[in-house]
Amino acid sequence: MADVSTTLPLEPDSIRHAYSKIHRYLHKTPLLTNKTIDRMASFSPDTDQSPKFNIYFKCENYQRIGAFKARGAFYAVIHLIEVLGLEEVRRRGVVTHSSGKLALALAASHFQIPAHIVMPTISTPSKIAGTQCYTKNVRFSGSTSTEREAVVMEVIEETGAILVPPYDHPDIMLGQGTTALELQEQYEAETSNQDEKAGLRIVLAPLGGGGLLSGISIFFSNKPEIAVIGCEPSFQGGNDGEIGLNSAPPRRIETVKTLTIADGLRTPVGELPWKIFTSGSEIKKKNLKTIYSVTEEQIKNAMRLVFERMKVFIEPSSAVPLAVVLYNHEFRKWVHQQQQAEGGAGWDIAVVLSGGNTTIDAVIGLFGGPDKDVKRAEGISGLDGKSVVENVAG
Amino acid sequence: MADVSTTLPLEPDSIRHAYSKIHRYLHKTPLLTNKTIDRMASFSPDTDQSPKFNIYFKCENYQRIGAFKARGAFYAVIHLIEVLGLEEVRRRGVVTHSSGKLALALAASHFQIPAHIVMPTISTPSKIAGTQCYTKNVRFSGSTSTEREAVVMEVIEETGAILVPPYDHPDIMLGQGTTALELQEQYEAETSNQDEKAGLRIVLAPLGGGGLLSGISIFFSNKPEIAVIGCEPSFQGGNDGEIGLNSAPPRRIETVKTLTIADGLRTPVGELPWKIFTSGSEIKKKNLKTIYSVTEEQIKNAMRLVFERMKVFIEPSSAVPLAVVLYNHEFRKWVHQQQQAEGGAGWDIAVVLSGGNTTIDAVIGLFGGPDKDVKRAEGISGLDGKSVVENVAG
Repeated sequence: MADVSTTLPLEPDSIRHAYSKIHRYLHKTPLLTNKTIDRMASFSPDTDQSPKFNIYFKCENYQRIGAFKARGAFYAVIHLIEVLGLEEVRRRGVVTHSSGKLALALAASHFQIPAHIVMPTISTPSKIAGTQCYTKNVRFSGSTSTEREAVVMEVIEETGAILVPPYDHPDIMLGQGTTALELQEQYEAETSNQDEKAGLRIVLAPLGGGGLLSGISIFFSNKPEIAVIGCEPSFQGGNDGEIGLNSAPPRRIETVKTLTIADGLRTPVGELPWKIFTSGSEIKKKNLKTIYSVTEEQIKNAMRLVFERMKVFIEPSSAVPLAVVLYNHEFRKWVHQQQQAEGGAGWDIAVVLSGGNTTIDAVIGLFGGPDKDVKRAEGISGLDGKSVVENVAG
Repeated sequence: MADVSTTLPLEPDSIRHAYSKIHRYLHKTPLLTNKTIDRMASFSPDTDQSPKFNIYFKCENYQRIGAFKARGAFYAVIHLIEVLGLEEVRRRGVVTHSSGKLALALAASHFQIPAHIVMPTISTPSKIAGTQCYTKNVRFSGSTSTEREAVVMEVIEETGAILVPPYDHPDIMLGQGTTALELQEQYEAETSNQDEKAGLRIVLAPLGGGGLLSGISIFFSNKPEIAVIGCEPSFQGGNDGEIGLNSAPPRRIETVKTLTIADGLRTPVGELPWKIFTSGSEIKKKNLKTIYSVTEEQIKNAMRLVFERMKVFIEPSSAVPLAVVLYNHEFRKWVHQQQQAEGGAGWDIAVVLSGGNTTIDAVIGLFGGPDKDVKRAEGISGLDGKSVVENVAG
């Protein structure tokens, strides 16, 4: 990774700069709306919890490699080239063992840079084959984080490859933040002919390691009228960000062992993203309003709506922000009160659908077969059993 | 339905006219591409069956009510208003018992026209509730086609309501044909900066009653360079169009009793669409090249690809044309030979994804749970058992 001293300051203009460097390699993903889901989100039997919403869905599941991660990976690689020169980066290559591996392999392949990807031997054959579509340099390791890091060190010693982390680096955060820039521009274009436009009021995004959420927070840091909200699964302490933020004083929780179905969000918040979210640090607080969490069942309900009503195929992690909008009492109560104070008008809000990398078989594992209750339980434990090692290690 | 004598001639300009009347009520659905699927479609171990494709997917699953049917219904209702006057149509209302019922209810509600929808008492509660979102006038009947038609006659006698059929009417065909117009315009815009553009060579669409396919055939009838191809499920004679077209002489098959998973395609081809597809009639042959069919397993494979690779949620009927592209030997051989004769360059082709009206539970029924083979069988028979009555009756 390029040395942190070479990165741009963590502010909106740096995200604009990152976007100018990467947009030609990426898809401009659609911003979708759905009236049925708006209606459902704007209804509640509790009169103190019936906020009104027009939801704009930023569909990063249609991004290259099926997730927002392509943004950070491209910017990280391009900045690396700027600092070290293309020849040097090609000679050394890049290496990772993280969840951003496909994104890194894609970005590296664009510049003919070797990408060394370390994967546990027990990975499913389809995952291995998928990764091999993007890079020839797949290396296998044991499944614990220590074992994987040992193989990464081997690769670095052998080749001089440069380690690219999945979220805990300013370049990655600036790259992921371009999601917010694009979203904002599309929203403005979409609503340009509306008369009394109140503008976007809330942006909700999933919170795992925090690369995406910190990038979005940075982008909106000079727009105090827009509240950025992080969204987590509450299952087995998957809401480490929420718990940490609400501790007195706030503290980053460093290990998480949850088997939540939102498997992209099982990692603890990274150090650098955490600094963006909290004020007591050298980097001043950006625009994060707060963090809310939802249950497994709420995530599944939201996922079902996105499939059946929007016809959009997403992974469970992507459904977490919509679940907050639909089911989190605190969130709904807060918006309701604000709207009442303002005269009751509905708000335009945005929800980031972060990725779509799942399979029909995994969906069956989540929602079960004809005899649902039995199968749902089997499905979840089966799924978790396989992927826990990869995800806890981050 | 407006009297057939009042409808425009079945030619491309009439579809342009229909589009000018309906486009403001409809979504302009996206035209998507996917490199992975292109690669898969352009590969075959058989050297005489490896055509090369760039596929453009016209996503009518993102159309209002989740299917192309909104197009025909809006045009039918608007033309009815032109002929009879809005007041008269509002006084009498419209009635249907067909698969196009949601589309009709939506279009009618836009003009405050009562829509009487006849549904079998055994319909699932969610289907009934869904229909009631669009109209208050749901009437129940027995489940055979005779029983449903009897209730339709009752409604007509009581209210004077005007019957709107799902496909066997020129207005419906012209309306559905706007899919082709939009597709063609989007394709031209998308490829406008390409140098040596060969243009669109094939358009594949599903064939059930034939409203969509006949509309597309009419739209391309003055473009002999574009081959329109109908796509059917072969299971239990679901390929009635293919069998009928290949009979000597060609004859329309009038009854079909298939339990294919492509449940939108279980109906026989309608009389008027059939005339568009065949030459031996008063309406001269339009641009239909031929009809191909695929197996249940091939449909499921194609559906899986659309979900997992494109992240697009479709119903099984929508996967039939892509299954033809990927798996139908005759089709692939024909394209391969044409391409070899021309020098081997790949072709731009379009595939219509006709709709997305299915559920996670139905997908589980199709693809089964962890113990797949058992559950797949259960799932299919369970699904079919419920819906066969509705679908055979058309």
